[in-house]
Amino acid sequence: MNKYMKIAIEEAKKGINDNHGGPFGAVIVKEGKVISKGHNHVVEKNDPTCHGEIDAIRKACKKLKTFNLSGCEIYTTGFPCPMCFCAILWANIGKVYYGCNTDDTEIIGFRDKFFEQSIPDKKIELCKELDREDCLKLYDEYKNITSKTQY
Amino acid sequence: MNKYMKIAIEEAKKGINDNHGGPFGAVIVKEGKVISKGHNHVVEKNDPTCHGEIDAIRKACKKLKTFNLSGCEIYTTGFPCPMCFCAILWANIGKVYYGCNTDDTEIIGFRDKFFEQSIPDKKIELCKELDREDCLKLYDEYKNITSKTQY
Repeated sequence: MNKYMKIAIEEAKKGINDNHGGPFGAVIVKEGKVISKGHNHVVEKNDPTCHGEIDAIRKACKKLKTFNLSGCEIYTTGFPCPMCFCAILWANIGKVYYGCNTDDTEIIGFRDKFFEQSIPDKKIELCKELDREDCLKLYDEYKNITSKTQY
Repeated sequence: MNKYMKIAIEEAKKGINDNHGGPFGAVIVKEGKVISKGHNHVVEKNDPTCHGEIDAIRKACKKLKTFNLSGCEIYTTGFPCPMCFCAILWANIGKVYYGCNTDDTEIIGFRDKFFEQSIPDKKIELCKELDREDCLKLYDEYKNITSKTQY
């Protein structure tokens, strides 16, 4: 077994044994060195965004004091859900090693596959434009700030 | 202007004036009552996952002591990125009111639209299966825990 995936599995096991959430652990590695370990805390923390990958990303960013994890890889026990995959993109992580796929994850009762398939329809169903002109004024204000940090 | 969107814009303004991140504010409402307000803290907190919507979701969940925001609506100054949209689905938020669209957000320098378009290719480019059998054993272990909280 890959040594980093082994750590991700151990992290996930800690989580499920303590009823923190699903069996999802993640490890972030840079140049062969483990930067952070995370696992799913949705149930324990009442935080639907605290998946294993996001927990590991937050911890790695805190440790490296940056919002940019370029040059890092992530090892995760299950294929990232759309939320986590996009978080990986925002963090500029360059490689994702996953264990189980979304079919496997569906079998144990999670909605990842359903979300992957239904997101285009859900966007139409759930989203409605409102006060765009007022929000565009806000965007303009932002555009005119010269000292800002872009990401 | 809608009164909740007005609050979302005010939240976003606080954020950009303090160089916390992009011009993105969000408000979560349940039965006409504001539950939480959030804004983008990516730069300030070095947290690439701390978008306005996710900040508001975390705060609402903390306040209501649940990972399930059924019956809530979210008001956000920009159309949710794929990370935030899926976070909204995980949280079971039933309605999304957004101000600017992803074209507007691209103009001010953010990658939301690029991610929306390139995610299928990025999945192929970045993701590689590893040690599935070992991870399936972990999933089995989870399946056999009878006292767990599912979400």
